[in-house]
Amino acid sequence: MSRDAVVVGAGLAGSLTAVYLARRGFGVRVLERRGDPRAPGVREEGRSINLGLSQRGIVALREVGLLERLAPLTVPMRGRVVHLADGTLRFQPYGLAEDQILHSVLRHDLNVALVDEAERLGVEFSWGHRVTAVDRAEPAVTTDDGTSHTADLVIGADGAFSAVRAHLGRGLRVDLHQEFLEWGYKELLIPVGDDGGPRTELRALHVWPGDDGLIVAHPNADGSLTATVFLPFDGEHGFAGLTEPERVRSFFARRFPDTLVLIPDVVEQFLAHPPASLVTVRTSPWHVSTDEGRGVVLIGDAAHAVYPFFGQGMNAAFEDCSVLDRCLAAHPHDLPRALAEFEGSRRPHTDVLAELSKRNFVELRDKLRSPLFTARKKVDLALHRVFPNAWVPLYTLITHTTVPYGEALARARRQDRVLGGVTAALTGAALAGLTRRSRNKGRWS
Amino acid sequence: MSRDAVVVGAGLAGSLTAVYLARRGFGVRVLERRGDPRAPGVREEGRSINLGLSQRGIVALREVGLLERLAPLTVPMRGRVVHLADGTLRFQPYGLAEDQILHSVLRHDLNVALVDEAERLGVEFSWGHRVTAVDRAEPAVTTDDGTSHTADLVIGADGAFSAVRAHLGRGLRVDLHQEFLEWGYKELLIPVGDDGGPRTELRALHVWPGDDGLIVAHPNADGSLTATVFLPFDGEHGFAGLTEPERVRSFFARRFPDTLVLIPDVVEQFLAHPPASLVTVRTSPWHVSTDEGRGVVLIGDAAHAVYPFFGQGMNAAFEDCSVLDRCLAAHPHDLPRALAEFEGSRRPHTDVLAELSKRNFVELRDKLRSPLFTARKKVDLALHRVFPNAWVPLYTLITHTTVPYGEALARARRQDRVLGGVTAALTGAALAGLTRRSRNKGRWS
Repeated sequence: MSRDAVVVGAGLAGSLTAVYLARRGFGVRVLERRGDPRAPGVREEGRSINLGLSQRGIVALREVGLLERLAPLTVPMRGRVVHLADGTLRFQPYGLAEDQILHSVLRHDLNVALVDEAERLGVEFSWGHRVTAVDRAEPAVTTDDGTSHTADLVIGADGAFSAVRAHLGRGLRVDLHQEFLEWGYKELLIPVGDDGGPRTELRALHVWPGDDGLIVAHPNADGSLTATVFLPFDGEHGFAGLTEPERVRSFFARRFPDTLVLIPDVVEQFLAHPPASLVTVRTSPWHVSTDEGRGVVLIGDAAHAVYPFFGQGMNAAFEDCSVLDRCLAAHPHDLPRALAEFEGSRRPHTDVLAELSKRNFVELRDKLRSPLFTARKKVDLALHRVFPNAWVPLYTLITHTTVPYGEALARARRQDRVLGGVTAALTGAALAGLTRRSRNKGRWS
Repeated sequence: MSRDAVVVGAGLAGSLTAVYLARRGFGVRVLERRGDPRAPGVREEGRSINLGLSQRGIVALREVGLLERLAPLTVPMRGRVVHLADGTLRFQPYGLAEDQILHSVLRHDLNVALVDEAERLGVEFSWGHRVTAVDRAEPAVTTDDGTSHTADLVIGADGAFSAVRAHLGRGLRVDLHQEFLEWGYKELLIPVGDDGGPRTELRALHVWPGDDGLIVAHPNADGSLTATVFLPFDGEHGFAGLTEPERVRSFFARRFPDTLVLIPDVVEQFLAHPPASLVTVRTSPWHVSTDEGRGVVLIGDAAHAVYPFFGQGMNAAFEDCSVLDRCLAAHPHDLPRALAEFEGSRRPHTDVLAELSKRNFVELRDKLRSPLFTARKKVDLALHRVFPNAWVPLYTLITHTTVPYGEALARARRQDRVLGGVTAALTGAALAGLTRRSRNKGRWS
């Protein structure tokens, strides 16, 4: 029995799920509001942000046989380089194991590779068509050219402000939690040096921490890096106050002094574009089924947009595609059951991820300067080195494993309770000794 | 300087705020999607639900001089009659003070009185016009007949699914939390008896508590009562399972036996309409101002819809109107400041109310049967009788005072901490003695 799927959104989640569906025998059409990302000029105009591919994303790409092909487009990140305000650099390796490496990749390159692969498998793409209605009873999707696309399975992979989600929920008891961070971001390019080589360590994630502003930079394959500056929207030292070139220059000189060297035109770049905002979205239900065994389901940011501070947005979306595919495989003749199982098994974990991503923002912003917090993190890592399997820090569980998010949190909480006892039991002298010993080996997280 | 206001929504919040604005010298136009509630036949077709007017609502109605005129339409409720599943009735007076009385009133009667008063003050109403756009830069409201209404002040008083809120937030960083309860409700009429008199005590709120279903009934001036049945949507004993007359009859016979006598056609009434849903909405911002000193603001359910279990929905909306009026009075020539002060001073308290209204559902559903919880409530009330000013239970603070919700909660928490110590300190024997002594005087809350 041949089945049809319509996927709304040809971004990362949409194009990967199209690949999975095509491999499972679905006839797949993808509807995308934007134009074809492979058209000339798109790369320069599009979102240039690059991403850190970690274990969950890697596993999904390996499942569809794309990992090897993507390797040349990625730059391995073997640790973090922390840039302190006094100019000091500190390198913190992620781990010795080969699977504890992040891979930096341009969103655009990854997207093009996924679209190419989907097309190779027979997926049809309709570019430049906006969704104007979703009829969940069919289900069918109508686009702004008046065409109606009926399918056995409709997938909403159309991002944090999903049109499919909005249409799907009309008249239903839909829970929706949408929260914006009081901080926004701008992207700045750290260009290659005059000698054609990178201006700083390339094989690392760079972080400028701080409670009044943060920068995170990912390396690109051409030797440049893309830096994302996170600042409050409001206030004198927020985006609202930083509109004059002189104020911008003195702000960067004071807070992120080495950026003036790494980004010669930092002021011009900073002032060229308005800041973008950061949103968390949680919603339920994710799916609606029909009595005839068809259905609509949300995946990726449409189902659960998270702040980027745990680096899990794309990785969680890719894991969605993998989990959904396993549910479809488990119930090949019962789509409603597959969708119910997908939502039932997946949503609790992405709800946890949303909370963790908020918490990690607070950690990056406020807690790094708390001596007790830093000491606990270091004890945490020291225990991981002594008991690599029995004791795994939360960051490692989230980033370098595929342990479901909720289980990762539960395990970390059990460890935390022990750790609370450990740090409480350590007297000042003992704590100082332990943290001194682990300082050079510790990594910042 | 004469100023104009456009109010969207002619429900309770919209028509009362129109009265306040007209009294303050605004030229006011109200746009309402529905027809004029005074048209023949509307009363029968409209929502018949009646409401419990408590202190906050009373204060607002007194401020605009309407309280006296409304008195004949209301029925005082001097306490609660609790109907237990074994058929026992228990009367629990609200308090001895004259201001600790609730007043039952039909939504429709109250609405008509407010619309009449607004018209008397020169307010113009446009009935049957749906909002299709809000331009927050003007501000202006466009209705479905293509008319655009520009005003100095636009007020969105159009309910939990506010169109003004949706249009106002486009492209802004708007936080929105919308949550549906897994329970819904249906209304049933307890008609007057065959002798023309009420079938049960009229001057009280009636409650049938329970963790698998609740009924709350308010008296009407004609001697009938309106009962609201709250049940889970799903499950055998939820609305989904109660679709056959025999099952409905046996469910009511088992859970709410005396309703079979009070409502002779309970089965027919129950099956006549689908259940309605219950939603909590929190959002921010509530207001947007222009550089020219104009603005748009949300009030009532459009800004903060709450579950009905604390009986505060209308009362909080009326208090909004009063607080907004005070802010406009404080800054007669600075509308943006008035709106900012309104949101800044009011939103923290309605956020607290949303939480309290959720918690009260859990109390009604689950906690009433917990002996410790009941004992604490009774100690709470006993202390209130001994120290009427120094010790006031949360329910009393919310219902019978105008202490802002957040302060009421903070005060109750301080008391709770003491109470925790008190109940912990009381041994079984002492506790039994105290609760026995206060049982006949206690009230259920």
